[in-house]
Amino acid sequence: MTFTHQSSFDIFILIALIVAALAFLFAAWLFLWVKKQPSENKRIAEVGKLIKDGANTFMRKEYIMLAKFMGLVVLLILLFLPSPVWTGNILDNISMAIACIAGAVFSGVAGIIGMRVATVANMKTAEAAKKGIKPSFLAGFRGGSVMGMAVVGSTLLGVGLVMWITHDPSLLLGFSFGASTLALFAKAGGGIFTKTADLSADLVGKVELGIPEDDPRNPAVIADNVGDNVGDVAGMGADLFDSSIASMAAAMVLGVALDKGVSYLNASMVLCFAAAGLFASIIGVAMARMGKGGPTRALNNSTYVTTGIYSVLITLATWLFKFEWRVWGACIAGLLVGTIVGIASDYYTDDGKKPVRNAAKAAESGPALTILSGLSYGFMSTLIPMIGIAVSALVAYKLVEPLGGIEYGMFGIAMAAVGMLSIVGMIISNDAYGPIVDNARGMAEMGDLGDEVLEITDQLDSAGNTVKAITKGFAIGAAGLTVIALLGAFISEVNDAIATLAEQGVTTSVFGHALERIEGFDLTNPMVFFGLLVGAAVPAVFSAMLMLGVNRNAKRMIDEIHRQFDTIVGLKEGKPGVEPDYTTCIEIATSGALRELLPAGVVSIVITLVVGLIGGVHAIGGFLCGNIVSGLLLALFMSNAGGLWDNAKKFIESGNHGGKGSDAHKAAVIGDTVGDPFKDTAGPSINTQITVISLVSSIASTLFLTLHIF
Amino acid sequence: MTFTHQSSFDIFILIALIVAALAFLFAAWLFLWVKKQPSENKRIAEVGKLIKDGANTFMRKEYIMLAKFMGLVVLLILLFLPSPVWTGNILDNISMAIACIAGAVFSGVAGIIGMRVATVANMKTAEAAKKGIKPSFLAGFRGGSVMGMAVVGSTLLGVGLVMWITHDPSLLLGFSFGASTLALFAKAGGGIFTKTADLSADLVGKVELGIPEDDPRNPAVIADNVGDNVGDVAGMGADLFDSSIASMAAAMVLGVALDKGVSYLNASMVLCFAAAGLFASIIGVAMARMGKGGPTRALNNSTYVTTGIYSVLITLATWLFKFEWRVWGACIAGLLVGTIVGIASDYYTDDGKKPVRNAAKAAESGPALTILSGLSYGFMSTLIPMIGIAVSALVAYKLVEPLGGIEYGMFGIAMAAVGMLSIVGMIISNDAYGPIVDNARGMAEMGDLGDEVLEITDQLDSAGNTVKAITKGFAIGAAGLTVIALLGAFISEVNDAIATLAEQGVTTSVFGHALERIEGFDLTNPMVFFGLLVGAAVPAVFSAMLMLGVNRNAKRMIDEIHRQFDTIVGLKEGKPGVEPDYTTCIEIATSGALRELLPAGVVSIVITLVVGLIGGVHAIGGFLCGNIVSGLLLALFMSNAGGLWDNAKKFIESGNHGGKGSDAHKAAVIGDTVGDPFKDTAGPSINTQITVISLVSSIASTLFLTLHIF
Repeated sequence: MTFTHQSSFDIFILIALIVAALAFLFAAWLFLWVKKQPSENKRIAEVGKLIKDGANTFMRKEYIMLAKFMGLVVLLILLFLPSPVWTGNILDNISMAIACIAGAVFSGVAGIIGMRVATVANMKTAEAAKKGIKPSFLAGFRGGSVMGMAVVGSTLLGVGLVMWITHDPSLLLGFSFGASTLALFAKAGGGIFTKTADLSADLVGKVELGIPEDDPRNPAVIADNVGDNVGDVAGMGADLFDSSIASMAAAMVLGVALDKGVSYLNASMVLCFAAAGLFASIIGVAMARMGKGGPTRALNNSTYVTTGIYSVLITLATWLFKFEWRVWGACIAGLLVGTIVGIASDYYTDDGKKPVRNAAKAAESGPALTILSGLSYGFMSTLIPMIGIAVSALVAYKLVEPLGGIEYGMFGIAMAAVGMLSIVGMIISNDAYGPIVDNARGMAEMGDLGDEVLEITDQLDSAGNTVKAITKGFAIGAAGLTVIALLGAFISEVNDAIATLAEQGVTTSVFGHALERIEGFDLTNPMVFFGLLVGAAVPAVFSAMLMLGVNRNAKRMIDEIHRQFDTIVGLKEGKPGVEPDYTTCIEIATSGALRELLPAGVVSIVITLVVGLIGGVHAIGGFLCGNIVSGLLLALFMSNAGGLWDNAKKFIESGNHGGKGSDAHKAAVIGDTVGDPFKDTAGPSINTQITVISLVSSIASTLFLTLHIF
Repeated sequence: MTFTHQSSFDIFILIALIVAALAFLFAAWLFLWVKKQPSENKRIAEVGKLIKDGANTFMRKEYIMLAKFMGLVVLLILLFLPSPVWTGNILDNISMAIACIAGAVFSGVAGIIGMRVATVANMKTAEAAKKGIKPSFLAGFRGGSVMGMAVVGSTLLGVGLVMWITHDPSLLLGFSFGASTLALFAKAGGGIFTKTADLSADLVGKVELGIPEDDPRNPAVIADNVGDNVGDVAGMGADLFDSSIASMAAAMVLGVALDKGVSYLNASMVLCFAAAGLFASIIGVAMARMGKGGPTRALNNSTYVTTGIYSVLITLATWLFKFEWRVWGACIAGLLVGTIVGIASDYYTDDGKKPVRNAAKAAESGPALTILSGLSYGFMSTLIPMIGIAVSALVAYKLVEPLGGIEYGMFGIAMAAVGMLSIVGMIISNDAYGPIVDNARGMAEMGDLGDEVLEITDQLDSAGNTVKAITKGFAIGAAGLTVIALLGAFISEVNDAIATLAEQGVTTSVFGHALERIEGFDLTNPMVFFGLLVGAAVPAVFSAMLMLGVNRNAKRMIDEIHRQFDTIVGLKEGKPGVEPDYTTCIEIATSGALRELLPAGVVSIVITLVVGLIGGVHAIGGFLCGNIVSGLLLALFMSNAGGLWDNAKKFIESGNHGGKGSDAHKAAVIGDTVGDPFKDTAGPSINTQITVISLVSSIASTLFLTLHIF
């Protein structure tokens, strides 16, 4: 095939849309399959309904709130972006606004689909466990896969449609911005909800009263399960959805700029590789079965299968369509770094390895040393992934640079991100499996399905936790490469804007600065360094605000749980027929999450705008780098420290250092409680924060160019 | 005065040496004054001797070990730095080695002087408290001032001598490297010692047994007091000593390069301003008296007085010697940012403000929420100081840049650091006051001086804690500006090296790369970005290694304390005549600290060398920036979180949320225990780590230029 005009590109758009449609069809089939599975236990149905209703209520309220917020954002876009409406072309602003709305809607719909299925699949998985571990595994996994397919199908559908209609990759940045912004807040909200409930349930239930996890006497137990759905299913999907779109947007912007309107070679490659990834994921999901190796092996195997098929597909495509082999190499470098980051995360959070063992041992000397060792290993755990991300970016750049210089190098990094994120359909399926089986475990406990069934759900749950470390590492690595690529997209957007302004005769900014093409961001330029320092502080402040939000809500919910245990007669003793008031706890988590989900994200975006309007594009260049570096560092630190505490606790619970109920166990539970908002609220939200900031900078580049003060 | 030749510079060297001599004379007078104060209590003398002997033993062992280590470093310098001995001039390597040794010796001697005085002043302060708070305050403050004067006197003496003998500022980098390296390890060792003892004493004494702090029954209580001296006096002085020399070295390197051998205007300014700062500190210390406002006010007032006098002196000097007013402005900008960082730290650690109050309130819900709120506020606390440092660097740059371009801008930043660090004599005096009165408090308790005296020492101790937050903020801000200036010095060194190599006909590196003048470090250069990511991980790994060291040692010491309480009959009950075995605890802390103090620093230095030898000077440029940014972020986070937990505990102890012995108090003590290694081991050591790394890079610049692989 020769890439001499647009029509060859249109073929790839068509391929992408067809694969997206396949993914949706497959998701529908999976959903029907899950729905068809038997359910008979009344108690489970009851609990399931409570969870479903709680989740739906929260999601509805959250989306109504976010719809209003996005309305405001869209208004601001209409007025100011890509350039103030009184200086530029209003049609540009309208297109950008529409793209942004489309992105937000796609993101929201994918989240809702995944969540709806998860709240059915949890019951089916619990019931299926009566028949054995294999059918139960399949129900959980296929439930999660609906989310995986819906999310990645939406990505490809959205990107395909935007490019088909407009052929303008800048609008893809707007689409990506809409999706990411919704993701940012949905994730923050879900994260606050789930950890408010989890933390409060643990602190009163496990620590104070010594009753087991998921004990139906605990008033917060249903809220905790609702949280798994709204936080881990809907929120987590949003993270990878958002990286995935952003990486494609960055690659498109850079690639099309290099194509220079003559060929669409690079843009075609982006779509082709992404479609290959989704196709590979469909096959991987379809083939997944639990064998003798247990659920963890099954989950990992399906990832390997997907990665293998993907590698074969892109090799074939590169050969067939005469794509550049160097770009193919960059993709493979991206795939590799995902694995490295995952393995490193696994080392620091695996209960067979030294870090978790040492933390569990430290628990014998009380909570302080448990916390200190978790924090220390969390910090240690950042080294290998940081080096891994750095090396893969370097390799991707150096591989592709010879094709035509710096811009090609940046395109190489973007393609590494695309390569890494192509198999995201599989990754999300694995990840969404976690909260579903976690829910199923709770239902098995509450539905009194007996010890045998509980043992099965425990096994499935534990597999979910293990792969979680790897998928989280993957998500952070992916976000890292994506935002580095977005830095390239930002430069490309700025230089485009300068060219456009020059055509209109504008060569200075409003405050009289000459508009000069950006060749890079020099760290010895004090404006760049200024941005670097401020940007580095943002993820710290962002995560602190989310954790303080959890703290505030948890305090309220703990008071409520105490109130119920104190006033509901017979609850503590577990008198038959006495039930706690689950709904009030769900309401506390809901209202608290809604109150806390906006400020942290808004503050981050506002700081970005302030830095850009003060120091212009150079300050923003430094700001983005500072944000990326400290964001990656803190995300890795928090995710791994949290995972380590969680598994140290589980290691003790399985009979070591005195087992359940010992002082070491109490110390470990405190560690786990600190780790919960680390790993499930703040840590993973940072990924989305750095992506949103990068996109804001790109779409506001004209604004920063023309309106900065210094 | 006209700056047309070297002789005018020599006058300023003379002035610097005279002021340094004055400082030493004043220190001697202060020491004799402290020694003259009465002491009669036998028990205090006994305890004092134990502390003194323990501190001396540790310092001796530590310095013997460090002498051997420095021997190795000197050998490596002789072989490789500034350039491999087989390629360059061996005399250069010998000079560099001598400068390095001199720096280490100066640093070591200043530490020993300060520590010796502190272990006398603590007894005198305790005894003086019998006569009232004013004489007691004066004994503590003047004891601390000996350290302040000795350290800053050594700085000026050392810099003056090196410049007098060689007139080569590059050797100043070697001198600074020697001083910083010794400081790095002395600080790490002292920090591990003090927190091993403190943490173990608290965990067993306060948490398990509920006995008061400084209770003589606790076997670790003397080790804890020894730790205050070796960690907080000797170690902390080393930190500011090292920033102080480094800032002058950076300013000298940049200034002399701009002077271009014609005038020595800039170099003269550096010495003149530094001498003015020391002179102002002498007056400030001499005038310090406690008035009606209490000890905190007295400490702060003396800082204000010093700052005021300093401002007047440099204004006069600028007018008299016709220095550039723009450079004067950069100095003032530096002074200001110190204040801003201090105030921000104060807000997050003051028990009258929201953060500490909220953390204390969270303690009612147990240790997990206490930890979470401390971590969250610690992260929040980074924003203002990061912005402050960024803005002051920007202002200093922009003020001085018009004098002649980028190099002048970097010189402006260096002068901001010099301006900030000029009053360091006063800051160290205030800071060393803290551990002395902390010791005195313990002695008053152990010497049974009665409740009235204890109340006085408590007041003095609390003032020490309050100013500590500010001095720590100051130290971090100073390190920040200094390392930014060192980045400039690094570029200057690299370009010097390239020019020298070109004269020798060398225009390519060993691996065939062309040697090109550095104009800056472009963040879109993937090698710079690679360095940035790796550099950012280093402070995290460094602090983790130190904290894990404390963890390991504390575990051993806790076992020993348990053993003593279990086997020494009558100890727990406090039977008269029964004494714990203090010495074994001191030995455990000593041997543990000696084992753990090297690895973290060595790892940091080795990673720097590896990055430089792989990626060359551009990778190092990014590496330094990553290191600075994440170092500042983590140092601020750790110092402030630690200070917040400490004061939340004290707030509860003063009768809030249930007071001493309540569950909230227990939770707060756990928070404080986590905070101890944060704020006194890892946090402040990061300052020194980033300085050492910056200096290593500068003195190894020729090596990195000629030997890098990619």
